[in-house]
Amino acid sequence: MTASDLLAEIAGVGRDASRGGYSRHAFDRAEDELRTWFVEQATRRGLDVETDRNGNIWAWWGTPGPGAVVTGSHLDSVPGGGAFDGPLGVVSALDAVDILRRKGFTPSTPFAVVVFAEEEGGRFGVPCLGSRLLTGSIDPDRARALRDPGGVTLAEAAAKAGHDPARFGPDPEALGRIGKFVELHVEQGRGLIDLGGPVAVGSTVIEHGRWRFSFSGQGNHAGATVLGDRHDPMLPAASVVAAARRVAGKFDDARATVGRLVPTPGGTNVIASTVDLWLDARVPGATRDLVDEIAAAATEAAREEGCQVTVTEESYSDTVVFDPALRDEMDDVLGGVPALPTGAGHDAAILAAHVPTGMLYVRNPTGISHAPEEFAEVADVDHGAVALASTLEHLST
Amino acid sequence: MTASDLLAEIAGVGRDASRGGYSRHAFDRAEDELRTWFVEQATRRGLDVETDRNGNIWAWWGTPGPGAVVTGSHLDSVPGGGAFDGPLGVVSALDAVDILRRKGFTPSTPFAVVVFAEEEGGRFGVPCLGSRLLTGSIDPDRARALRDPGGVTLAEAAAKAGHDPARFGPDPEALGRIGKFVELHVEQGRGLIDLGGPVAVGSTVIEHGRWRFSFSGQGNHAGATVLGDRHDPMLPAASVVAAARRVAGKFDDARATVGRLVPTPGGTNVIASTVDLWLDARVPGATRDLVDEIAAAATEAAREEGCQVTVTEESYSDTVVFDPALRDEMDDVLGGVPALPTGAGHDAAILAAHVPTGMLYVRNPTGISHAPEEFAEVADVDHGAVALASTLEHLST
Repeated sequence: MTASDLLAEIAGVGRDASRGGYSRHAFDRAEDELRTWFVEQATRRGLDVETDRNGNIWAWWGTPGPGAVVTGSHLDSVPGGGAFDGPLGVVSALDAVDILRRKGFTPSTPFAVVVFAEEEGGRFGVPCLGSRLLTGSIDPDRARALRDPGGVTLAEAAAKAGHDPARFGPDPEALGRIGKFVELHVEQGRGLIDLGGPVAVGSTVIEHGRWRFSFSGQGNHAGATVLGDRHDPMLPAASVVAAARRVAGKFDDARATVGRLVPTPGGTNVIASTVDLWLDARVPGATRDLVDEIAAAATEAAREEGCQVTVTEESYSDTVVFDPALRDEMDDVLGGVPALPTGAGHDAAILAAHVPTGMLYVRNPTGISHAPEEFAEVADVDHGAVALASTLEHLST
Repeated sequence: MTASDLLAEIAGVGRDASRGGYSRHAFDRAEDELRTWFVEQATRRGLDVETDRNGNIWAWWGTPGPGAVVTGSHLDSVPGGGAFDGPLGVVSALDAVDILRRKGFTPSTPFAVVVFAEEEGGRFGVPCLGSRLLTGSIDPDRARALRDPGGVTLAEAAAKAGHDPARFGPDPEALGRIGKFVELHVEQGRGLIDLGGPVAVGSTVIEHGRWRFSFSGQGNHAGATVLGDRHDPMLPAASVVAAARRVAGKFDDARATVGRLVPTPGGTNVIASTVDLWLDARVPGATRDLVDEIAAAATEAAREEGCQVTVTEESYSDTVVFDPALRDEMDDVLGGVPALPTGAGHDAAILAAHVPTGMLYVRNPTGISHAPEEFAEVADVDHGAVALASTLEHLST
């Protein structure tokens, strides 16, 4: 069973017929099925499985303990996401265990494969929730109260899935066991296409965050309400979409995106009463400056329409530089590979503030991610698993 | 039981906890409960109830037949709508029957109260579906294939609710029985506030329609995709919201609204792959000119972003002038009341092309409709029912 074979095993789980691709969200049926599948795979390999207080799954090769070499990723997806973002790191970790065993290798350090919970924030809005809770970078009360689009809280969903949300929170014991962490991930841009190689190591993750813009106006009849009587929150909301692009163009290497926008009540013949939209913003060294400028434009546009707006920071992560010493070691082991920055967030970037952390990227020939077109060739997937195995062997020798 | 008492009886049905107000949609549980309630009310009054091939309910006082005086409205709502739009016309019709009976009046013509199906198009997108099917102004194959936001077709929903969608279509027999039709409705603008009266008759309904704009681009990662690599359909979609307001400002008495906009997949950290939005447009004499201009702006904006757009007319209704002779009769009976134009569509406006049709509006002190703030005072509601009873008495004598 190579990494590709393992991916093929889960190819039917959580397909999204309406959006295309996959929708596998924290504590939903598809993610639960994948978690069960992972536990079976780990158990079949003789790994000892435990789920920590935050819903992250750990599969130990040998005795758990401090100084562990840990690898893994996540199994949830964005809505309508690709097959590789998350699962590739998990199946490659399982494949790496197999590769090392076939070589007769036994780690000299504790060794674990981890599956983090709710990495995408696709259901509860805050990304990397499992690693944030583990490391104490989100208040557990705030996490428990997060709601999905249907109004279900994280606490309710976790309890329904058999977890105890009262135990959510910092887990210094679990964190303290991690000696080094390496996450393999499909590349989410065109870096390796341009460089012509199958794998790279991660250098940095651009600072990034999510802001919710909530506009309120006056719901009314679309036919009976003359223009002059309107307070339509869709107008300032639409202006934020335009402002995000315009303002991002003024910063170097900025990314600003509105991918989610919800008018309420959402009737064709109804002027909306409220519109919520989410701004995803990432600018090297200046993300909050960009958001401030967009928020100022939103406030002015709301005022012009007689509407109100509130802007809430839902998450923010500073720029992360992966451990340079670990990166050099990985580069040596892999015989020299490129180092790539990324605009995408990862659990590895959360852990990087606490333990030496590295990333391995596998080439994505479409350059597209968070969409059904996300892809990796079988040869590259298998190349990635071998590279991960070599890295882990080196680190746990 | 006055009209106000009857409204109070159904005040708990179909409340929408998240949007506020009511969500009562064609063939859903709330609308079904209201239909059952109506049948009970009609039966309690000794009216003979029948449901026609298109799901419209008819309650006959005396023997059904041609030349009937018919009154009624609808029980469905927009999402998060008010308590009066639709139900007020139904309860006022029942109250009018009671008022006439208390007077000892018996109609000399056939006489019916009608409840039309899916007036708002809140579930399947096309408004006045029951009256359009009845009058043959929509192809029944097209109607059966309409889908709700969850992908359920009208045919499936109707079958599940116990109707036979194969029978949907023009119903010349039911239409041929209507001699005159009068619909009472809550006013949806500020006309009667400004005039200071409780009721008015309808003069005209502005031409109006709904257009779907479907943008497609390239879904991708919000963090890993630089601005220059983007084909984000949210950009041209947002420009349509702005264009609708800008272009409408160039026409006299124009209304153009985007109240429904759906990005797919709708993830915060995902550049949308498609965005659908619906334009509700109403311009005296020039609705399609306005839409053409907005569509041209949409096409240009899509081209600039490397996206595609298709524009589909989902419904269109020409300007309706209610029967002048009937309006004069109503004005005489009511002792002189104002005549008001409206930008809102009604089943009465569909029927007006086939039979002499009139409308009665009841004052709405907020001027707001299609929203929870929609209102009518008890005194005005009861005044409206009395006015309707007088009108029906005159017409059926």
